[in-house]
Amino acid sequence: MTTSEAVENLSVDACWELLRSTTVGRLAVQTANGPDIFPINIAVDGGTIVFRSAEGTKVSAALNGPVALEVDGRNSDTDHAWSVVVKGHTQRIHKSEEVLATVDLPLVPWHKGDKPVFLRVQPRQVTGRRFPIAGPEAWWTPISEAPVTSED
Amino acid sequence: MTTSEAVENLSVDACWELLRSTTVGRLAVQTANGPDIFPINIAVDGGTIVFRSAEGTKVSAALNGPVALEVDGRNSDTDHAWSVVVKGHTQRIHKSEEVLATVDLPLVPWHKGDKPVFLRVQPRQVTGRRFPIAGPEAWWTPISEAPVTSED
Repeated sequence: MTTSEAVENLSVDACWELLRSTTVGRLAVQTANGPDIFPINIAVDGGTIVFRSAEGTKVSAALNGPVALEVDGRNSDTDHAWSVVVKGHTQRIHKSEEVLATVDLPLVPWHKGDKPVFLRVQPRQVTGRRFPIAGPEAWWTPISEAPVTSED
Repeated sequence: MTTSEAVENLSVDACWELLRSTTVGRLAVQTANGPDIFPINIAVDGGTIVFRSAEGTKVSAALNGPVALEVDGRNSDTDHAWSVVVKGHTQRIHKSEEVLATVDLPLVPWHKGDKPVFLRVQPRQVTGRRFPIAGPEAWWTPISEAPVTSED
């Protein structure tokens, strides 16, 4: 993806700060039928991200392959938006002492459905970008710039 | 994924109405290194979703395999949140008349970086859920319900 001067790559520290600032993320997993994506409530626990879920195909997919977790937001004061992506692997939290540590985290479930499974994303890579939100002048594509070719 | 009575599966019509209500979504793609996910500005165009991007590995991944696009939001009046997922394939918009139709859509780019590529997601499946946002009483996991087993 090309970037313009307007896009700022964030430091890993800044990424973690943003991860800690939010409780909702989206998890992308690979399934046999292609990628799937679902919103989750997250909490940072040390250098990992913890979330709860119910058993099911999505949890299986998360446990059986790499995942990508994205959080984003916008700062209306500065007209900036940001996006942080964590890539890694997911592990089930087994041990009671681990869960006891986890339940102290602000894992606010978005809905009350039964979510007995605690999962932990171990990051392999954490990246983030911050960029000014485009103004109305950028809403429209000038016809002269519209792609008219048919190359692939 | 198991659901509780609190979770409502949305009709396809309701999903499209929600898709039209928002301009930001997250696209999940499959890469050789696992899933990737990135925020995009979207617009509904007929029965498809259009977005703009710059050339790059993410666009290549979107064009070379199935994708999953998720939008979500919350209604603070009713304390409900919702999530809609579109699964399908992505096509490059080539023809000038297609682009001319597209530029009338409210494709507000989140940032001003050069985004010359117009892409269209052709849905194979559209699903959505709506669920009440859990109250504070559901924030904490009672110790008695915490998983203490080590089965897989």
